[in-house]
Amino acid sequence: MVAHTGPAVPRIVGRDARQTPQSGADAIVLEIASSARAALTSAGAALADVAVAACSAPGPLDFRSGVVHEAPNLAGMVAFPLGQRLAEALGMTVFVDHDTAMAAVGEAVAGAARGAKDFVYITVSTGLGGQIVSGGRMLRGVRGTAGELGHFPVALEGPRCGCGSFGCAESLAAGRNLAEQFGVERAELVYDAAARGDRRAVALIERAEAALGNLAVGLVNALNPALIVVGGAVAEHQPEHVLGPMERAIEARAFRVPAASVRVVRADLGADVALLGSVLAARERAAGRGEWFL
Amino acid sequence: MVAHTGPAVPRIVGRDARQTPQSGADAIVLEIASSARAALTSAGAALADVAVAACSAPGPLDFRSGVVHEAPNLAGMVAFPLGQRLAEALGMTVFVDHDTAMAAVGEAVAGAARGAKDFVYITVSTGLGGQIVSGGRMLRGVRGTAGELGHFPVALEGPRCGCGSFGCAESLAAGRNLAEQFGVERAELVYDAAARGDRRAVALIERAEAALGNLAVGLVNALNPALIVVGGAVAEHQPEHVLGPMERAIEARAFRVPAASVRVVRADLGADVALLGSVLAARERAAGRGEWFL
Repeated sequence: MVAHTGPAVPRIVGRDARQTPQSGADAIVLEIASSARAALTSAGAALADVAVAACSAPGPLDFRSGVVHEAPNLAGMVAFPLGQRLAEALGMTVFVDHDTAMAAVGEAVAGAARGAKDFVYITVSTGLGGQIVSGGRMLRGVRGTAGELGHFPVALEGPRCGCGSFGCAESLAAGRNLAEQFGVERAELVYDAAARGDRRAVALIERAEAALGNLAVGLVNALNPALIVVGGAVAEHQPEHVLGPMERAIEARAFRVPAASVRVVRADLGADVALLGSVLAARERAAGRGEWFL
Repeated sequence: MVAHTGPAVPRIVGRDARQTPQSGADAIVLEIASSARAALTSAGAALADVAVAACSAPGPLDFRSGVVHEAPNLAGMVAFPLGQRLAEALGMTVFVDHDTAMAAVGEAVAGAARGAKDFVYITVSTGLGGQIVSGGRMLRGVRGTAGELGHFPVALEGPRCGCGSFGCAESLAAGRNLAEQFGVERAELVYDAAARGDRRAVALIERAEAALGNLAVGLVNALNPALIVVGGAVAEHQPEHVLGPMERAIEARAFRVPAASVRVVRADLGADVALLGSVLAARERAAGRGEWFL
């Protein structure tokens, strides 16, 4: 729960965190609604005090209808009307959007992308996601699912990705994928092993860096952004293995003018980016600026 | 030279084709100006009859300033003020834009993308290029160089590309690259050899198809377009090796909703697409719609 205090960064005044239920989409809706009420209580507020509500969700989803098309990591969340179900549960409009869209709005309005009208937001975390902002407008696509940058194939072969494809940037460079490929619980352990000289870990990380380099070069050549804002736990903890390779690849391999006009920067808003972004996005959407926000 | 006759497809009333001079950018400007005058003469017209002029050029370039940043295949065309130099030579404003932008405008207004506000134009020809249109707006980027889709790296390794990088879709799938890699003059000969069962040709073409598949899947996941319009000589002559692999890769590997909402179609306007598109683009730019044209 966030109190919105003007155009600056919203202030978090209450919060409640829960494990995601594994027993289906209905259980997830109930848990979100219950968590929302608990967050309000922790802030000494009630539903009647709330002007606008938003929910950040994994995708692909349609932000216009609030329908989550696919969410491989949420049990039972397929073609699910999340926005409508949350609205019923809470008795108010709930703006649903992709977690990366919420994060991009957050970074654009209050974070590392302030002032930029052409930028790409990328999160390298458990998975790899993103959003494209061009001319101050978030690129949405014809069904609102645009932005799945982690599933741009950047290799002609490679391990199977969670999305069913192969060669995806995510399959080669996201935290969960690196950990699985090395056979450990957390990506951190792969980086630790590489630092100790483990050759298998080094090879996996070199491949991840090459994939991130390809993605960065491609985005610079295709989109000519002013900024690539990189967030997510892996980027935060291993910037020299995430931002570094992207910068070096752009410098060495992208066209000269777009390479010279882009900076690769760390996201500003940290782990609360989707929470802060959701408030900002909800404010924009309530004001009728769902697609145009800069 | 094209007579503009309303909102329909412009009618070509005069033309003049020349070899591109290899002796530098000044010579290219003189030759374009001379060719423009000859085209006018062939149509029984003069410079004074011309309301608007446009020039389609390879890039990356800045359509706003008319400066061509880099054009690897045009001798001496580096950081060159093509628009200004043509304006001086012809005594009138000349709108310069990327050949793929002219083609995308042409297909959008009068060709295969009529009615689509979210589409990608791709040309598979000597080289591989493209443009992105999102929400009726051509995606330009911060310096106007966006759209170099042929230089999205889709492989972790591969032969050196003309742009200096490697793994680019162009380096694996464009006509000149295929021909060079097989050691012949024209891409057509590689397809002929593959049809006769030449294993090296088959392998090169399979790799080209895999690269096109990666590019198509990535564009669908990242941009969620309604259409991918594919033009260019290779696409025209070998649709089953260009559009086919793109369609199959999208069907097999892209996210379900964006895959179901996109069609891969052949460009409509043929070899004159950039000529027709230039007229339409010039009309739009003269009307102040340089970035917004749908």
